[in-house]
Amino acid sequence: MTPYQRLVLASRPRGEPTADNFRLETVEVPALQDGQLLVRNHYLSLDPYMRGRMSESKSYAASQALDETMIGGTAGEVVASRHPDFAVGDAVVGNGGWTEMTLSDGTGLRKVDTSRIPLSAYLGAVGMPGMTAWYGLNRILELKAGQTLCVSAASGAVGSAVGQLAKLQGVRAVGIAGGPEKCAYVVDELGFDACVDYKAGNLFADLKAAAPDGIDGIFENVAGEVFDAALAQTNAFARVALCGMIAGYNGEDIPLRSVRALLKNRITLRGFIVTEHLDCWPQGLAELGTLVADSKLKYRESVAEGLPAAPEAFIGLLKGRNFGKQLVKLI
Amino acid sequence: MTPYQRLVLASRPRGEPTADNFRLETVEVPALQDGQLLVRNHYLSLDPYMRGRMSESKSYAASQALDETMIGGTAGEVVASRHPDFAVGDAVVGNGGWTEMTLSDGTGLRKVDTSRIPLSAYLGAVGMPGMTAWYGLNRILELKAGQTLCVSAASGAVGSAVGQLAKLQGVRAVGIAGGPEKCAYVVDELGFDACVDYKAGNLFADLKAAAPDGIDGIFENVAGEVFDAALAQTNAFARVALCGMIAGYNGEDIPLRSVRALLKNRITLRGFIVTEHLDCWPQGLAELGTLVADSKLKYRESVAEGLPAAPEAFIGLLKGRNFGKQLVKLI
Repeated sequence: MTPYQRLVLASRPRGEPTADNFRLETVEVPALQDGQLLVRNHYLSLDPYMRGRMSESKSYAASQALDETMIGGTAGEVVASRHPDFAVGDAVVGNGGWTEMTLSDGTGLRKVDTSRIPLSAYLGAVGMPGMTAWYGLNRILELKAGQTLCVSAASGAVGSAVGQLAKLQGVRAVGIAGGPEKCAYVVDELGFDACVDYKAGNLFADLKAAAPDGIDGIFENVAGEVFDAALAQTNAFARVALCGMIAGYNGEDIPLRSVRALLKNRITLRGFIVTEHLDCWPQGLAELGTLVADSKLKYRESVAEGLPAAPEAFIGLLKGRNFGKQLVKLI
Repeated sequence: MTPYQRLVLASRPRGEPTADNFRLETVEVPALQDGQLLVRNHYLSLDPYMRGRMSESKSYAASQALDETMIGGTAGEVVASRHPDFAVGDAVVGNGGWTEMTLSDGTGLRKVDTSRIPLSAYLGAVGMPGMTAWYGLNRILELKAGQTLCVSAASGAVGSAVGQLAKLQGVRAVGIAGGPEKCAYVVDELGFDACVDYKAGNLFADLKAAAPDGIDGIFENVAGEVFDAALAQTNAFARVALCGMIAGYNGEDIPLRSVRALLKNRITLRGFIVTEHLDCWPQGLAELGTLVADSKLKYRESVAEGLPAAPEAFIGLLKGRNFGKQLVKLI
């Protein structure tokens, strides 16, 4: 087979990542040993958590090693196999990394059915982002019909699923997103009750107007001012699923000003990492898959073309330039 | 009977309360109706939560009304009764307010046994502060033996009980307090494993040294920098009982800088108000009473003499000038 390309971490970012932090390499296709298989990756998933792995600072997960293939979720097809559980042609999802080909011993690799669900959806609504939404909503927020949810980064892969799943439970869903186009999509296409444009300059007042009965649950992806605005509207005994803080992935401090609300409203807040709750995945993925197949859970993808486009797409993701799930199409 | 004195809220504070916010009044002793009793208050409890009630801002409880007797916990003796459940001479604890005498219909009034427990302790270690410690520790933090607790305002009525109860469970207790005298008391008298003086200028480094295995539970009474320092030392899956924020009772914003730790360490944080968990009080008060009677739970009191001294004692409490439970002796 012809050589393939991969992207390695060349250097750790200081502040915002740049294209220089990555290096494109050409690699020979390895020979298979018994128990191994080779996957041709069709899609690479780009996710905000990757920014944390690029730093050396202590986090919940090990740092990405320098000069190694960048970690990342992938969906692809088995093109060679000496593994008893995988055959050539199987559609698979796993953590192949930023690379066109992945040699695997099957660990963490999952065969998926693409007859009713597109392969790429297994990296989004029926994958880690979807499960993140499902877990935070069903295991942390546990809202009742009629209550109000606020979710930031509402047009993103996680946020869009959170709001739609909440609506299916009879919860009022209020999104926060950047710009009128994303907000219109969140309301008109995804069916949220309202969406506040944090770039419009009236975040606190607009959110108050969008959540006239107050906020009972916050699904927080951004932190910073967006989180403060939501906390300022919380009702007593509100709950917060703290999922991400895109606003602070470059290492800067993002002070939270509404600390008082945490006490005053007797709020329960939980930070979580969905990969630590794998016991929930079978149930969650089954539900998400059914909803996607039945067109009850919609999603949007921003697709960059070709592996060399991955660094710029990733940098754009951290700045909110994507619209929906950010993917890189590799084939 | 001779007239008695009471303190009413004369005006709402702007920033720090001043003596001018209170007004001393002389009141005639009322005649008793059937079903009423009269309590001569021996002790008035001063507590940080009162600062919140003095403001008009929306809080978890109604504001203190202007020109009405300031709310507050009291311990005293029944001096006249036309109520079937109370007899002259009964020792009682209730919410009599900042006043020498309280006319009551028995609501919220509890007879207490002073044979093994001093009357004043029912306003501290065997009262609301003790229950606050008990609830936060046993219902929110739920630490295991060998884990590390960090508690701020460690020499105060709540903090001192938190650390001692934790020690009885085999938990390592690290306090934070202001000044060498309070810190020495916390370690030498109360038996905490360590106490960090936040006024010494090395809060972050000193706390790191005092909690070499990291922090598994934070009982937070202060907020601000003290809370940030504790969060910076948290281990994965640490828990936070958010009980108070003395640092912000005057209404100023106290930004929290360690937001990242909440996510990185998958922290669960809960703000709570102990009076919303009255179902726990019988069990908690029984345990606390036994511990005090057996001298296994120690406490210290700062006692101001006479009702007119209450405003200055309260102002001092908010500034950390008290040492242990702040009381006013009324008789």
